[in-house]
Amino acid sequence: MSESLPAFTPDEYRQRLARAQKLMAERGLAALLVTTEMNFRYFSGLHTQAWVMPTRPMFLVLPAARHPVAVIPSGSLVGMRQNSWIADVRTWPAPRPPDDGVTLLRDALSEISGPGDRIGAELGPETQLRMPLLDYHRLADLLAPRSFQDASALMFRLRMLKSPAETARIRAAAQILSRSFAALPDALHAGMTEREACVALQKKLLDGGIEKIPYLVAASGREGYETINANPGDRQLLSGDVLIIDTGSTADGYFCDFDRNFAFGSRDDATRRAHDLVYAATDAGIAAARPGRTAGEVWRAMAKKLGEDAVRGASVGRMGHGLGLALTEPPSIHPDDQTVLEAGMVITIEPGVAYAAADGSRKVMVHEEDVLLTEGPPTLLSTRAAADMPVIA
Amino acid sequence: MSESLPAFTPDEYRQRLARAQKLMAERGLAALLVTTEMNFRYFSGLHTQAWVMPTRPMFLVLPAARHPVAVIPSGSLVGMRQNSWIADVRTWPAPRPPDDGVTLLRDALSEISGPGDRIGAELGPETQLRMPLLDYHRLADLLAPRSFQDASALMFRLRMLKSPAETARIRAAAQILSRSFAALPDALHAGMTEREACVALQKKLLDGGIEKIPYLVAASGREGYETINANPGDRQLLSGDVLIIDTGSTADGYFCDFDRNFAFGSRDDATRRAHDLVYAATDAGIAAARPGRTAGEVWRAMAKKLGEDAVRGASVGRMGHGLGLALTEPPSIHPDDQTVLEAGMVITIEPGVAYAAADGSRKVMVHEEDVLLTEGPPTLLSTRAAADMPVIA
Repeated sequence: MSESLPAFTPDEYRQRLARAQKLMAERGLAALLVTTEMNFRYFSGLHTQAWVMPTRPMFLVLPAARHPVAVIPSGSLVGMRQNSWIADVRTWPAPRPPDDGVTLLRDALSEISGPGDRIGAELGPETQLRMPLLDYHRLADLLAPRSFQDASALMFRLRMLKSPAETARIRAAAQILSRSFAALPDALHAGMTEREACVALQKKLLDGGIEKIPYLVAASGREGYETINANPGDRQLLSGDVLIIDTGSTADGYFCDFDRNFAFGSRDDATRRAHDLVYAATDAGIAAARPGRTAGEVWRAMAKKLGEDAVRGASVGRMGHGLGLALTEPPSIHPDDQTVLEAGMVITIEPGVAYAAADGSRKVMVHEEDVLLTEGPPTLLSTRAAADMPVIA
Repeated sequence: MSESLPAFTPDEYRQRLARAQKLMAERGLAALLVTTEMNFRYFSGLHTQAWVMPTRPMFLVLPAARHPVAVIPSGSLVGMRQNSWIADVRTWPAPRPPDDGVTLLRDALSEISGPGDRIGAELGPETQLRMPLLDYHRLADLLAPRSFQDASALMFRLRMLKSPAETARIRAAAQILSRSFAALPDALHAGMTEREACVALQKKLLDGGIEKIPYLVAASGREGYETINANPGDRQLLSGDVLIIDTGSTADGYFCDFDRNFAFGSRDDATRRAHDLVYAATDAGIAAARPGRTAGEVWRAMAKKLGEDAVRGASVGRMGHGLGLALTEPPSIHPDDQTVLEAGMVITIEPGVAYAAADGSRKVMVHEEDVLLTEGPPTLLSTRAAADMPVIA
């Protein structure tokens, strides 16, 4: 996989830091404290699975003017030296609950800030500070009268605009998933379970070069499904069923995220109409995703096509989102999201409707594609789904 | 997979709540606020991949005397109704950044506590509060003069002792991994890359019934490897190499976690001696893992076998840890960990040494097994590695 992807150069990381420093200056921040996996990798280049273990925090200190400092467990030092452009790396032998990096952070932040300075941290929406809160409070006490303030929006602002090397990874993941979905019908048959169908897809993804499959949900039912956020189960797929599989899978740490629907045998007209409607809404969402428009306007373009009642019934709260190092990140394709779209953003277009199946039961139908915004029409990173559901004989 | 596993009964969840309430009473806590994936599932039974998305928090309120309350995004309501014993479920249409569950939490916590009461939350070691910190601060302000205090140790105390249904899942995962590791040599050959070897293992895991593979690291090199916490790469495996693969994989949400070493062709004496030493240390660690001993004593039993210099050189900070809903959880097999072991705990035994390969380069060698503590000798959940490394011709 990685051989064919453009490398992240030290220059790219220097530019990311420079853009962060410009925003720090505008906001009067002396430094940023980074604790989360995605921002740590974004600024350091270290791509590690150590984050799966809740035991050991890892930190970056990004000063407004000087070089960044990494504060990490000694067990991650070899990886850091091999994979990061950051030269100033300070370590401690974690786990050490009485002092898991706190005094090292105090030192690093003290060196580059003065009393009264403000330090930006990951405190806002869609963000969880990735260190024990008691340690954060202790750090804040040690650094007083310096204060922390939210800088999560600042970091999302940088991450929303993808570089070509980042886009290449999302596209690689999306293309592997597209090929795997396209080849999946040959591996499906009536009588198999949701779980077996998902194993078949995962093996194709791994053979195709996908690195991780952190998110893979499936749902099925006669003429449709009731929810999409469910673990694949032991339900047998039978003639008349619709199956949806939705996955967030990665190439070199970057996510694609989209779903596909599969029909087992023939479908009723109601199901067919729901599919056509959501397909058309996806087209409308893609067409609306232009620089200068807001995320809310993209939502409204889809909602207009779908009709408000159908949207409300299906709603998982929005009809798409940013993606990149995280499966979901700002902006939200939500009526209240005022983010102005720009070329270089990567978002999902993910409309859904509620409908009544032929037997009167309530079902939902969801579609999804991944797009890169450009100055002109968006570029599809996923291969557009066929206008008709693939039919499994 | 799940058909063959014993179900978690509503009674089991009632017992978990009752044990939590007993500890709350002892500590003078009016309630627990639960925000993290593992504790949310432990108390509610809802096993969902929604946690992969940083966008939407989910909460439980566990009162000292009354019934629990779930506060979740409306998109997770169907899953909650189908999978949780909790009846009082309150929802909001997330994402809604101005109020992502905060006022619902304020209401739920106000109903079951009075001014001056203390509420336990996940603030301590090995824990990260899983909500935006600004929201937590707002909640604390709304609830004042109630106060939050750390209850992470209380929750880990409960989770450390596994029920039979929990152990069955860890054992199922460990047995699938054991069988997959045992079958792997047939799929390995000189000339393939680390990544290809890991794809072969992952496909076996999926065919065997593994649900997720959140953690899978590999390292290789001539006569040994330099670190173990690395993503599988494009390095070609050649005669004279040692390959290690270490994975934390799940069955129905519960982790196994162990590694295996593979020799490509013959090995030098130094590598062979390192392997024998770590193998013997693993035996010593397993033998020492008895109720009444401390986690530190298990560490010392292994360190004595290995020799202190070798331990220091290899150290990733400890030689094992608890496992269950999390890949790593308390206790730590660390010299300073005073946790007294009890029957029902599940831990990894994970010794490592540094050694000089025949060419003088510094290498490490790590082994790992998963064990369930009993009143007598521990029960292996993984199938004990062969005394000699499998040799790939």
